[in-house]
Amino acid sequence: MLIERLRELIPADRIQLDPAVTASYAHDEAEWAAYGTPLVLVRPRTAEEVQQVVRACIEYEVPVVPRGAGTGLSGGANAVDGCVVLSTEAMTAITEINPVERLAVVQAGVVNDHLRNACAEHGLWYPPDPASAPWSTIGGNVATNAGGICCVKYGVTADYVLGLQVVTGTGELVRLGRRTAKSVAGYGLAGLLVGSEGTLGIITEVTLRLRPQRSPEHTVAGYFSSLVDAGRAVTAVGAAGIVPSALELIDRHCLEAVDQWKKMDLAVEADVILLARCDAPGPAGEEEADAIRDCFERAGATWAARSTDQTEADALFEARRLAYPALERLGPVLTEDVCVPKAAVPEMLARIETIGTKHETLIANIAHAGDGNLHPLLITPRGDHEARERAQRAFREIIDEAIALGGTVTGEHGVGLLKMDGLAKELPAEVLELHRAVKAALDPHGILNPGKVIAVDNE
Amino acid sequence: MLIERLRELIPADRIQLDPAVTASYAHDEAEWAAYGTPLVLVRPRTAEEVQQVVRACIEYEVPVVPRGAGTGLSGGANAVDGCVVLSTEAMTAITEINPVERLAVVQAGVVNDHLRNACAEHGLWYPPDPASAPWSTIGGNVATNAGGICCVKYGVTADYVLGLQVVTGTGELVRLGRRTAKSVAGYGLAGLLVGSEGTLGIITEVTLRLRPQRSPEHTVAGYFSSLVDAGRAVTAVGAAGIVPSALELIDRHCLEAVDQWKKMDLAVEADVILLARCDAPGPAGEEEADAIRDCFERAGATWAARSTDQTEADALFEARRLAYPALERLGPVLTEDVCVPKAAVPEMLARIETIGTKHETLIANIAHAGDGNLHPLLITPRGDHEARERAQRAFREIIDEAIALGGTVTGEHGVGLLKMDGLAKELPAEVLELHRAVKAALDPHGILNPGKVIAVDNE
Repeated sequence: MLIERLRELIPADRIQLDPAVTASYAHDEAEWAAYGTPLVLVRPRTAEEVQQVVRACIEYEVPVVPRGAGTGLSGGANAVDGCVVLSTEAMTAITEINPVERLAVVQAGVVNDHLRNACAEHGLWYPPDPASAPWSTIGGNVATNAGGICCVKYGVTADYVLGLQVVTGTGELVRLGRRTAKSVAGYGLAGLLVGSEGTLGIITEVTLRLRPQRSPEHTVAGYFSSLVDAGRAVTAVGAAGIVPSALELIDRHCLEAVDQWKKMDLAVEADVILLARCDAPGPAGEEEADAIRDCFERAGATWAARSTDQTEADALFEARRLAYPALERLGPVLTEDVCVPKAAVPEMLARIETIGTKHETLIANIAHAGDGNLHPLLITPRGDHEARERAQRAFREIIDEAIALGGTVTGEHGVGLLKMDGLAKELPAEVLELHRAVKAALDPHGILNPGKVIAVDNE
Repeated sequence: MLIERLRELIPADRIQLDPAVTASYAHDEAEWAAYGTPLVLVRPRTAEEVQQVVRACIEYEVPVVPRGAGTGLSGGANAVDGCVVLSTEAMTAITEINPVERLAVVQAGVVNDHLRNACAEHGLWYPPDPASAPWSTIGGNVATNAGGICCVKYGVTADYVLGLQVVTGTGELVRLGRRTAKSVAGYGLAGLLVGSEGTLGIITEVTLRLRPQRSPEHTVAGYFSSLVDAGRAVTAVGAAGIVPSALELIDRHCLEAVDQWKKMDLAVEADVILLARCDAPGPAGEEEADAIRDCFERAGATWAARSTDQTEADALFEARRLAYPALERLGPVLTEDVCVPKAAVPEMLARIETIGTKHETLIANIAHAGDGNLHPLLITPRGDHEARERAQRAFREIIDEAIALGGTVTGEHGVGLLKMDGLAKELPAEVLELHRAVKAALDPHGILNPGKVIAVDNE
């Protein structure tokens, strides 16, 4: 019935029923998150087609699960049985890049890096840089409020969303937010949609604030023999009033995995590496870099230096980027995303180590240390069911410890499915009730990505 | 009945019934906005007392109108007949200033400048700087999403709100948002409350993101003989990739009023003055200032210079600050707050001039030109009823023209009462309906600042 209705409403080539195809759109990259079998995959090209799909879903009471590139790590884009999966991959128009207003208007399916490159041609810069930037879409970035490496200075996706075009849970196609530099005309509904993971509306177009291209970055590396020393270095950078444009931590397990794969001998030299970047203009940038190096040294770095050539600097950040695929060679990787107060980073890393030992689980750490956003990576031997169960217990304990230290269960990946239990631990019942009230107000038919973020009574 | 209940719930000295006192809490500084007679004024000291007041209001179905210092310019804090006015003026604790996490926790009634001074003692900076900063409260700033002069580089109040403690429309005392640098744990409800003018919850405490103290500012002044030239200068600064920390416009009417009052002879030299500041660190700051001066000159400034001493620089900004009181000497001032795309600033100023002529109303302009946020100031002779009606017609036409140019009816002052009609023109019916759905979800009893921002059916 729904399929026939869809065929009346949108072009036939936008509708895909082949189970071999729809299966590949049934989940994101979250390890071990449950997913169902979609009824149909639709790939609309326009906001109006998205609206038609949502209206049909309302009419036939069929859930709709929106997705961008499916690079999410929390299961937020995972299908439920019998749903419509709505992929924005065909919505790739960069509608406007406006140097005077410093904004861009893009369809939801535009890939993050494509936008960044298009902006660069106008001397403009779109900062949010999740690791998935070569593949992930702006719509997905907005739906999960994606972070990245430069957040520590430039903020997250939410900080760049001026306006959204959205199909609501009642099938209306609306514009929320603004194009002007400022506006307080009405409630901040665009901001409410950011990070709501498709549960409050389906994003079809995004108006983004841009910045002028920044000055070239300087890179500083520090090798440390303990997590405590590295943590002290992070605190020292903050206390010195420096705002680096990146401040990343890579632990021994990551270094060993990269070494094994790429023969880099990093773990021979360091137990923990901190990588910082800074981009203040002119001589101030060099002063900033030197000041960061001094902070590293005073905190006990066994080696610290400002990288003077770009190739060397890029190689160091490449080691960070390689950590994840290097670890994946060892087995399935369950990715954590807790965020704790910056001062609690060393303690949190110590507790993660203890949890790994207790549950006999290899846990490597990369971290946006300057933000307190940790990505413990839990690696299990392929096919080892008991190891998987141990890892899942460790995952839950990491969440508990993050909350105990005043942190949050997800810094930038989203709640999706993997963090629903964690969210219910983090937020008191009264706040969960507010979530349900907002969900009921904006998705009265309960068809928008049901079963994600919060448990709703009628499900 | 309600009064007796309040006496059971909160200390007697927190309750004020004297009509002479309550009357002075019945409205904010919006010219000609309607207000009613409060039943009672309460001045709680704690969040728990606020909660008790709201619970009593729910029980007795009495509306509660929250207010900070009452410096608002849209009537958002105006009493309705028989309401409880809840002033946060006794909630003045700065609970925490944390240099490591770079955040502050303050009660809602803390005055903006007090917080800024307290932060400075720790080498930290709270940027949002509304003109009311010496008197207005952080709670009020958050409730209206206040702007200011440095927004053009540093953003508005919303950009600094990490978390809120709020009493909800169901009388729950909850914490929304976060203390960590990042979090996507659940919906952005703290952000939704920002700018909601007390209609979705009453803010009792705010957790604010801070920045390190910035480098000293450089000031650049430019004198122009036409609005078009000044507008071109603003566009040129943007096109040069410069982000000034202030870019303010003062028109001839303001200059004349300041001249009349302070004998400054500004209007002899210029028809329009642009004042810019920039704060890039080190030599880059001087380069920025010189580049701005060059932009001014190329756009046709009759005189432009980088101010080399702080006294001279402060005097120029003082002239801007004096514009408002100088105009008030001429009669009641109705303050506009439209925000248009930056490129539309000269056209909007031209249309404002036309509207002033048409309605025989003196309209002076100060503007956050770098943001496209204009403050046309409509001045009428005291007691001249017809002049007032002409001014109100001009006010409505300015709103219409701002919308026609792709702008918004309020950039930073809020909707309150004065912009409710404008909001209904700016937003389509479907978006107003979303507002009502959210309002009904978070204020199911309809007691929170009723009649503000949006018209609700049951009122």
